[in-house]
Amino acid sequence: MSGSRHEDLPDSVGAIGERGLIEAVTALLSGGPDVLLGPGDDAALVRVGGGADGREVLVSTDMAVEGRHFRRDWSTAEDVGHRIAAANLSDVAAMGGTATTVVVAIAAPGDLPTRWALDLTQGMLAESQLVGASIVGGDVVESDRLTVAVTVLGACAGPVVGRGGAEPGDVVAVAGRLGWAAAGLAVLSRGFRSPRAVVDAHRRPEPPYAQGPVAAAAGATAMIDVSDGLLADLGHLAAAGSVGIDLTSSSLEVAEPLLAVGAALGVDPLELVLRGGDDHALAATFPPGADLPAGWRQVGLVAGGEGVTVDGAAPGGALGHRHY
Amino acid sequence: MSGSRHEDLPDSVGAIGERGLIEAVTALLSGGPDVLLGPGDDAALVRVGGGADGREVLVSTDMAVEGRHFRRDWSTAEDVGHRIAAANLSDVAAMGGTATTVVVAIAAPGDLPTRWALDLTQGMLAESQLVGASIVGGDVVESDRLTVAVTVLGACAGPVVGRGGAEPGDVVAVAGRLGWAAAGLAVLSRGFRSPRAVVDAHRRPEPPYAQGPVAAAAGATAMIDVSDGLLADLGHLAAAGSVGIDLTSSSLEVAEPLLAVGAALGVDPLELVLRGGDDHALAATFPPGADLPAGWRQVGLVAGGEGVTVDGAAPGGALGHRHY
Repeated sequence: MSGSRHEDLPDSVGAIGERGLIEAVTALLSGGPDVLLGPGDDAALVRVGGGADGREVLVSTDMAVEGRHFRRDWSTAEDVGHRIAAANLSDVAAMGGTATTVVVAIAAPGDLPTRWALDLTQGMLAESQLVGASIVGGDVVESDRLTVAVTVLGACAGPVVGRGGAEPGDVVAVAGRLGWAAAGLAVLSRGFRSPRAVVDAHRRPEPPYAQGPVAAAAGATAMIDVSDGLLADLGHLAAAGSVGIDLTSSSLEVAEPLLAVGAALGVDPLELVLRGGDDHALAATFPPGADLPAGWRQVGLVAGGEGVTVDGAAPGGALGHRHY
Repeated sequence: MSGSRHEDLPDSVGAIGERGLIEAVTALLSGGPDVLLGPGDDAALVRVGGGADGREVLVSTDMAVEGRHFRRDWSTAEDVGHRIAAANLSDVAAMGGTATTVVVAIAAPGDLPTRWALDLTQGMLAESQLVGASIVGGDVVESDRLTVAVTVLGACAGPVVGRGGAEPGDVVAVAGRLGWAAAGLAVLSRGFRSPRAVVDAHRRPEPPYAQGPVAAAAGATAMIDVSDGLLADLGHLAAAGSVGIDLTSSSLEVAEPLLAVGAALGVDPLELVLRGGDDHALAATFPPGADLPAGWRQVGLVAGGEGVTVDGAAPGGALGHRHY
């Protein structure tokens, strides 16, 4: 290979950034006859075994690094296990699928308590069992930086729902909580431990796993799990579908604990709802006039154009989100 | 959960060790109706999608940490990519299967050259293409410790071959090189760069991928990939099958470059063959009187008892192996 194609890229991982590097790496991948849906969605869809009897399998992988994605002083080992598993399991739900199989690789410092690693595993097991998935194997290596890589396999009973299918006129709807985990993170970041409801939401998100297959069966045209924040993740849906999305702020539920956190910390609770990630709510688009399934609430509409607006106006500020 | 079951375990990851922690974690896993072969083999075999039409899928995951499993000053990024992919792809071959799908998670320091990450990917891609597998997705995160987690999916066209099926009287045979990568490691560890053949074998092992399905079709009763060394990995086969294995030293080929390294470094080249890992040769057992397929050579016999002997005697020293 030659590096000539890479010469115009920023020259370090820090400069190109995680997303930039993901895009550059993805550009190298070439697919294949058994790659039905490649990189760039919540999970890939592949045919394993080849041929007409090959089974379509969803697969997604994620890596969590201590100090960046979780902190041992903010969460118990079991909490971290729940959280890391939830982030992966919800990627399969966001395709309209159900996770069946989990493998885990753990890089652990020598001074990590054995108990911590086992409790982490228990947390991942308990979260996986919520969807009926089994942890079937993994790897353990010593490293000075505690790192957990999880890969989830799953399957769709019905249609697979990618990110790119939204059409102008479609209804935008969400299932699950928005802003709760971000409110918990805001509280913990300032040294507090309450309101307990939002701290718990940060430690153990409650993704609406079952709503993924429900939305697929109801005809969802596109779907994503909200891990980076509603604005950012709807931005991904809009970009993948070459459409615009307009949110109606009055339809976004701001729950009581978020009002309390907003008041206590001097932040706008609607910003938590719009930008907070890690609750792993599901956001999907449905054809005009579709009956939304129970558990889904309309929050906006798909339009022409591009990007995400709120009440017709561009939202201010960055769309990003810290994941701790 | 309660930690009462864990109280008699060594209290840190360093004290319990990688293998000990893998065993303790594995003891927590409970399987399930769609887990056909759980942890403890080269790969797990699961049914994804459930029900009679569920497809049987092999899955295996491994994590490689810089400074422990690879060194940037000893290998190019492409070499590291080849090596990490090979270690995973050969796990599927060792079940009698063929890998179809690879996902990769990379934790990279901010000062890692972008080019290094892309060349790593190219190496993994090229190695995966040797067996027709596609890289379909992954994750990139920043971390101060360069770490690569790879998960491979695959399938068996014929029977799945686990570790536990060896019977007394079976023939023990190997396919692929033994001791070459260890010789390369020994050379590099002493600051040398030749013989080039063994250094290259360390940097880019050449697992005999196709021999996995070949052995399965020929009736192999048990199989493993030699990643920890022949003695150690046959020890795993012996333990899983509750049998003993006796190797015949005269049947173990000691190639010329290994003789040269042995002479230059003052090590017994047979020790490299017996204890060297990371060539990812395949070791398998076949029923008595079976015609060994081309590419396989008999190196011993399965007997009653337990453990691994060489010419009827217990080998001295530890069975372990450094992986750099």
